[in-house]
Amino acid sequence: MRKIILGCGISLDGYIARLTGDVDFLFMPKDYSQKEFFSSIDAYIMGRKTLDAARKMGGSFGGSKAPAYVFSRSQPVGKREGVTFVNQPPADFVAQLREKDGKDVWHMGGGELARAFFEADLIDEIRLGIVPTLLGEGIPLFPAGFPQREFELTECKRYSGGLASLEYRRIRGAKSKANKNVSRRGRR
Amino acid sequence: MRKIILGCGISLDGYIARLTGDVDFLFMPKDYSQKEFFSSIDAYIMGRKTLDAARKMGGSFGGSKAPAYVFSRSQPVGKREGVTFVNQPPADFVAQLREKDGKDVWHMGGGELARAFFEADLIDEIRLGIVPTLLGEGIPLFPAGFPQREFELTECKRYSGGLASLEYRRIRGAKSKANKNVSRRGRR
Repeated sequence: MRKIILGCGISLDGYIARLTGDVDFLFMPKDYSQKEFFSSIDAYIMGRKTLDAARKMGGSFGGSKAPAYVFSRSQPVGKREGVTFVNQPPADFVAQLREKDGKDVWHMGGGELARAFFEADLIDEIRLGIVPTLLGEGIPLFPAGFPQREFELTECKRYSGGLASLEYRRIRGAKSKANKNVSRRGRR
Repeated sequence: MRKIILGCGISLDGYIARLTGDVDFLFMPKDYSQKEFFSSIDAYIMGRKTLDAARKMGGSFGGSKAPAYVFSRSQPVGKREGVTFVNQPPADFVAQLREKDGKDVWHMGGGELARAFFEADLIDEIRLGIVPTLLGEGIPLFPAGFPQREFELTECKRYSGGLASLEYRRIRGAKSKANKNVSRRGRR
């Protein structure tokens, strides 16, 4: 089944962007190759604000065969300027997407759209690049307001510039509490 | 100079506790030794809520020579039940603490007290144990409302149960932008 992968760069305090939408604090280490990940996906999901931010940074969509779906409550639905605007419940949209053959799908955003996807339990993997900066304020990757979700850590790696790469896989059901070689108590 | 080290366990979405104050989601991997850290500190700083949570989990203070300072706006200042209640600006308190000889100081809390310490730029190191759970809501380690602060990643390590240990050192002044072998742009 096609996986939905939430992936983005964040500040140490969990922001995907400044309140202005700027992402100047993010950086891409030269030793942090995303090549394998890029080749594993063939569709993008994002919110309208992430589209704006991506375009501001020179990102463009529509040049490849990978469709970019932009969730928006204000834009008319339909395909234009390389992207496809959609406005439907995430669960319905993802069900349709999974009916089609294809590779995995990159959920590029955070904020409200990420919350809606976590609420509907549609995120299968998380890929974070954490930069060593506390912003102090900004747009959160994980805004409050969805049920608890368990994950499994699949990568924990350090890259140059102090980028910490953490990757997770969603654990659903009984497996979530199993096989933890740990004592269940607080750290003090 | 004695360093102030903010250290705690958090959920993947950055919470130190549930809204109820519970920390049942945290765990301590058997392979994650804190021995070296414990031997490097000889004083604790926390907020009153963290004291309550620590006591609930069986933690006690006053048994050793390491004083525990509890910031509280509601409790009368002074020493009792193994801790010392304080109510003064963090910068003044830390300046006095640093005048005394001693080891490093463990800032155990998050939330409002962490924000006040970041605002006054009093945190020298951060030690996080990130558990692979999205809580969906809780008490944040880094509540919004302080100026941007740059750090250097000093450890990025995986422990059993999927605990990701990230450690950082505060970089102050001109060094903060130097020596990053990276291209300064967004991740897309």
